[in-house]
Amino acid sequence: MTDSRLPCLADIDAVVFDIGDTLVHAARPGTAVDSLTVDVRPQVLDDLRDLADRGVRLAAVTDTSVMHEADVRALLEPAGVSALLEVVVTSCDVGATKPDPLSLVTCLERLGVAPTRALYIGDRVIDRAAADAAGTHFAFIDDTVAHTIDRWEAAGPGTFAAAVAGWSPDARRAEGARADALARMDALAKPPGSLGRLEALAAQLAAIAGTCPPPLPSPAAVAVFAGDHGVHASGVTAWPQEITAAMVGMMAEGRATVNALASAVGASVLVVDVGVATPLPGLDHRSARRVRAGTRDLSVEPAMTLAETMAALDVGTAVANELIDDGARCLVTGEMGIANTTPAAALIAALTGRPPVEVAGRGAGADDATLARKTAAIEAGLQRHSSDDHPLEVLASLGGFEIAAMAGLVIGAVTRAVPVVIDGVIANAALLVAERLVPGVAARAIAGHRSAEPAATIAIEALGMHALLDLDMRLGEGTGAVLALPLLEAAVRALTDVATIADLQSG
Amino acid sequence: MTDSRLPCLADIDAVVFDIGDTLVHAARPGTAVDSLTVDVRPQVLDDLRDLADRGVRLAAVTDTSVMHEADVRALLEPAGVSALLEVVVTSCDVGATKPDPLSLVTCLERLGVAPTRALYIGDRVIDRAAADAAGTHFAFIDDTVAHTIDRWEAAGPGTFAAAVAGWSPDARRAEGARADALARMDALAKPPGSLGRLEALAAQLAAIAGTCPPPLPSPAAVAVFAGDHGVHASGVTAWPQEITAAMVGMMAEGRATVNALASAVGASVLVVDVGVATPLPGLDHRSARRVRAGTRDLSVEPAMTLAETMAALDVGTAVANELIDDGARCLVTGEMGIANTTPAAALIAALTGRPPVEVAGRGAGADDATLARKTAAIEAGLQRHSSDDHPLEVLASLGGFEIAAMAGLVIGAVTRAVPVVIDGVIANAALLVAERLVPGVAARAIAGHRSAEPAATIAIEALGMHALLDLDMRLGEGTGAVLALPLLEAAVRALTDVATIADLQSG
Repeated sequence: MTDSRLPCLADIDAVVFDIGDTLVHAARPGTAVDSLTVDVRPQVLDDLRDLADRGVRLAAVTDTSVMHEADVRALLEPAGVSALLEVVVTSCDVGATKPDPLSLVTCLERLGVAPTRALYIGDRVIDRAAADAAGTHFAFIDDTVAHTIDRWEAAGPGTFAAAVAGWSPDARRAEGARADALARMDALAKPPGSLGRLEALAAQLAAIAGTCPPPLPSPAAVAVFAGDHGVHASGVTAWPQEITAAMVGMMAEGRATVNALASAVGASVLVVDVGVATPLPGLDHRSARRVRAGTRDLSVEPAMTLAETMAALDVGTAVANELIDDGARCLVTGEMGIANTTPAAALIAALTGRPPVEVAGRGAGADDATLARKTAAIEAGLQRHSSDDHPLEVLASLGGFEIAAMAGLVIGAVTRAVPVVIDGVIANAALLVAERLVPGVAARAIAGHRSAEPAATIAIEALGMHALLDLDMRLGEGTGAVLALPLLEAAVRALTDVATIADLQSG
Repeated sequence: MTDSRLPCLADIDAVVFDIGDTLVHAARPGTAVDSLTVDVRPQVLDDLRDLADRGVRLAAVTDTSVMHEADVRALLEPAGVSALLEVVVTSCDVGATKPDPLSLVTCLERLGVAPTRALYIGDRVIDRAAADAAGTHFAFIDDTVAHTIDRWEAAGPGTFAAAVAGWSPDARRAEGARADALARMDALAKPPGSLGRLEALAAQLAAIAGTCPPPLPSPAAVAVFAGDHGVHASGVTAWPQEITAAMVGMMAEGRATVNALASAVGASVLVVDVGVATPLPGLDHRSARRVRAGTRDLSVEPAMTLAETMAALDVGTAVANELIDDGARCLVTGEMGIANTTPAAALIAALTGRPPVEVAGRGAGADDATLARKTAAIEAGLQRHSSDDHPLEVLASLGGFEIAAMAGLVIGAVTRAVPVVIDGVIANAALLVAERLVPGVAARAIAGHRSAEPAATIAIEALGMHALLDLDMRLGEGTGAVLALPLLEAAVRALTDVATIADLQSG
């Protein structure tokens, strides 16, 4: 078995489950043990029986504040779950909570199963951390156990996780290339520093590529990720949700603004449905990658599950890989999603600690009442969060699919040393997520255009970035970033095509 | 005889001269009549005799505060000039000073020569105004009378004057096209106003073209005008003057920064020697258009004569015409000229009334002592000027050749309804000159990049303009403006290639 082969159930002897929100709907925190009732998640009994029929051994590992194995089994018994689980280990049994792997390791020892032949399924990032520490396979629970295993067999750890795992940035090489570029700029037949920000841009492109001069950032490809948002139901925008699908159709036909602007600068556009609510039967396989028909309402419940979030990240990284494999030497993040300034602002607030009133902007023309509803929705979503939350869980909770995909695209580009240009507020939120997921990514991305949305400035400043253009644009779609592309090519051509002072003196 | 035929001496019965600084070096203003002495300008006697030998009748018309014809003749007699002049008319004789044409008209009546068969030669804009009012031909005095007539026969009123004379801007049509473009922008499948400054840019391009949608501003051509500056001798820069010629060579070979950046955005570059001090034998006829080998030192004397100034304006307009005839649909002003931030700052100060200390910047890296010399040079040049001066005389007095040529290019582009993108502080000075020469021109030009030089901001604000880019560049050559070109194409493509809201609703 090679690393590149996808995993399959045939290679697995045991599936170990987290319990709360994996097998059963979790009780509210603080519920007294006496009051606990079990509400089994859909299809769990059928799916577990099916696994057992296929010869897979089943177990559970859970954190609880007071219960031992017998207590948990007693609770699960009436619903028929306990009988299906060969082993149950609780944090009370072993005296350690996740991400400590002790409960999982203990479970596998009791089963007599090697970690590499076990799959742990949970609903939290700490579950994944415990699995990583124990050396087992891992999958985030999807809507059903069966779907979880199907997706795991189809994708393994996923394109996104593979890109991150395979990335080993060489800081010395990057800084060497940056210094070479700045030295070359100083040697050109022009007053030192006279190309202003173009010089720093050239140096950054050299650092991203790890070589000076860097390759021309051409051809460039714009990936426009489209998704819808359950928070639309909370009245955060006056635009009907169907506009998202209609605009995806326009983009696929090449008739949206991003197509016109990309054409003006010689870039291609790929629109990707990663979470649109309305059916879009006409899209080809490169564009039809819907994870779910829109997110849930972030003001009411988590917008996405972690499984969905990973799937959307995977779409973004996979699109980056495909575009680069097809010859793109620069990527641009674009998006389309009615209501998506709401999750973007909520993410930026959650990840920077700024209050909702500072991040909420008027997006595509919100009036005062709409802005108030938007602010309230962000406020409600943020109440699920503290600054301790893992950024992946923040992303899942506040959404949306296109934002996760953009983060995946950015990380895909950075891990392949290809420059990626970031558009407005939605992309800024995605970049902030990407940086928190994979520190060091933002310094290797380029802010194309300053968005007028207040949250955009907060995100960009939190990342220490400075956008190249400031044209008061607020359309999204990637349009602002597209217009910055000629600056990248000009910066590289200044490094490669211009004579030096030495040439001038000898000429 | 058609309007397009160049004039020639065979069509002329009389040449009438202004006297002070045309035939003789002018006395300082306020010199007592008794103290006046005559210092005849080079070759005047030979050239006048030659004209007489060719059958041309000669006369003079001059403004003086106290002298009548006999007084002037008595003064000119010893030098041998009076005997060559058939008629002399002074302002005292007729009771009216130029630009009133009465003295010129009286002179022609006495000669019995029709205005259309007379050429008036003078050294001031009021001379030209009097000639225009009288209906005679006119030429500014060159270094000699013979050269003046040679140039007049070769160029007639000149390419610049012809462009201005033939321009009749249709404000209603321009504003109609602008309104159509803004209405179209509002109808596109995007939130109103969401393309920010790109929408105003598209509307301006429509107004410039007088039609909506405007033609694509492509291909674009950069004209880099090169000149040297006598003020270099006053220590206003640390860079040697020879750099100008060396950089012109680099540009002709395609190895300067402007070539690299133009290549990145698909524009062509033409470098034009309009006043370089160092010989440049290798340039082809499109590039070799030197009016003089550098200007005089503006801190000591007028940098250029009006004849030289007109010649440089003609070069600029002629280059605009040729580039447009060759297919360019957008022009960019570029320049190369060691020390040229000094005349640029001086011009901006003279035309806006701002003091030298506010306009003088560090250009290509001036230190404190250099900056002080630069400020003093500007101060000295400005002492020749008052706010009443004609802008053409301000341009001539402060220089330089490349600035005049840039003004000519801008006016050439505007009068042919082709967009022209303005670069940094030198181009800003040229645009300010162009606007004062031909009001309405600046509103039809586009500021590409905000220069860091203080005078640039003063000029741009005086013109009510707002640059598209702000990348802290201060190289010149047209490099800042070149980078704005993709924005122009993007603005037009947004108008022409994007679906409307109506398309979206029916789609």
